[in-house]
Amino acid sequence: MLQKIVLNDGFARFTDTWSPKVAGDINGMQVKLAKFEDAFTWHHHEVEDEMFLVINGRLRIDLEDGAVELSPGEFVVIPHGVEHRPVALPTAEVLLFEPATTLNTGNATGDSRTVSDLDRLDVW
Amino acid sequence: MLQKIVLNDGFARFTDTWSPKVAGDINGMQVKLAKFEDAFTWHHHEVEDEMFLVINGRLRIDLEDGAVELSPGEFVVIPHGVEHRPVALPTAEVLLFEPATTLNTGNATGDSRTVSDLDRLDVW
Repeated sequence: MLQKIVLNDGFARFTDTWSPKVAGDINGMQVKLAKFEDAFTWHHHEVEDEMFLVINGRLRIDLEDGAVELSPGEFVVIPHGVEHRPVALPTAEVLLFEPATTLNTGNATGDSRTVSDLDRLDVW
Repeated sequence: MLQKIVLNDGFARFTDTWSPKVAGDINGMQVKLAKFEDAFTWHHHEVEDEMFLVINGRLRIDLEDGAVELSPGEFVVIPHGVEHRPVALPTAEVLLFEPATTLNTGNATGDSRTVSDLDRLDVW
C-alpha cells in the first residue's frame, strides 16, 4: 500500500537545519522537507528550478533585485540561473520541489553546509 | 521581480472543480491548484507520477488494494501505472505536483471532465 506523508510528522523526525530530507519522488523530481534558520549562502543552480513552499515559520528569499517574503501557505519558484539567498525569520519549515539532482548550495559548493547524500523520510 | 503565490488567494480565483490551474513551472513539472468535489473517475497515468497535497478539506484516494485519506498538510505520491480514484469528502482544495504533460483523467480520456488546455494562475 502507498503511504501518505504527514508534513508535520516529517518535520518532527529531524532537527538539523539546511539539510533537506527526501519525502517523495515524482518522475526524477523530489519533494524535500527542510528546516531553515537565519541566513543561508548566496547561490544559484545552473540547471534546476526550485520551489519553496513555507509550511511553518517565515522565510525571506533575497534576490539581486529585491526579496520575496513567504508565510505558511505561500510559495515561490526560483528559476535556474537566478542568484538567491534564503533567510529564515528566524526559523522556517519548508517543502521544496526540485530535480533530484539539486545540490542545496547550488554553485556555492565550497560552503560547509553542502549536503550531497540526503536522508529519506519516506522509508518505513 | 519574481512573484509569490498565496495558495488561498489562488483557490479564491476559480470555482470550477476537477479542472487544475497551473501555478508554477519547475523544469518541465508543474504545480497545479485544483478543487475537487465528490468522486472523480478511476484512471491511471502511463508515464507520470502524481503528488496530491491537501491544502483545505479532505480527500480520499481509492486504490485497487485500499485507500489513502488525506487531511490538510498531508500528501501522497501516486506512481505512474497505479489505478486510482480521487474522492473529495465532500470537497478538497489540492496542490498537485506532476509533469506538465499530465492529463487530469489519465487514460480515461473519454471522461467529460478531461481538461487538456489548463488556465494559469501565475499570470499578472
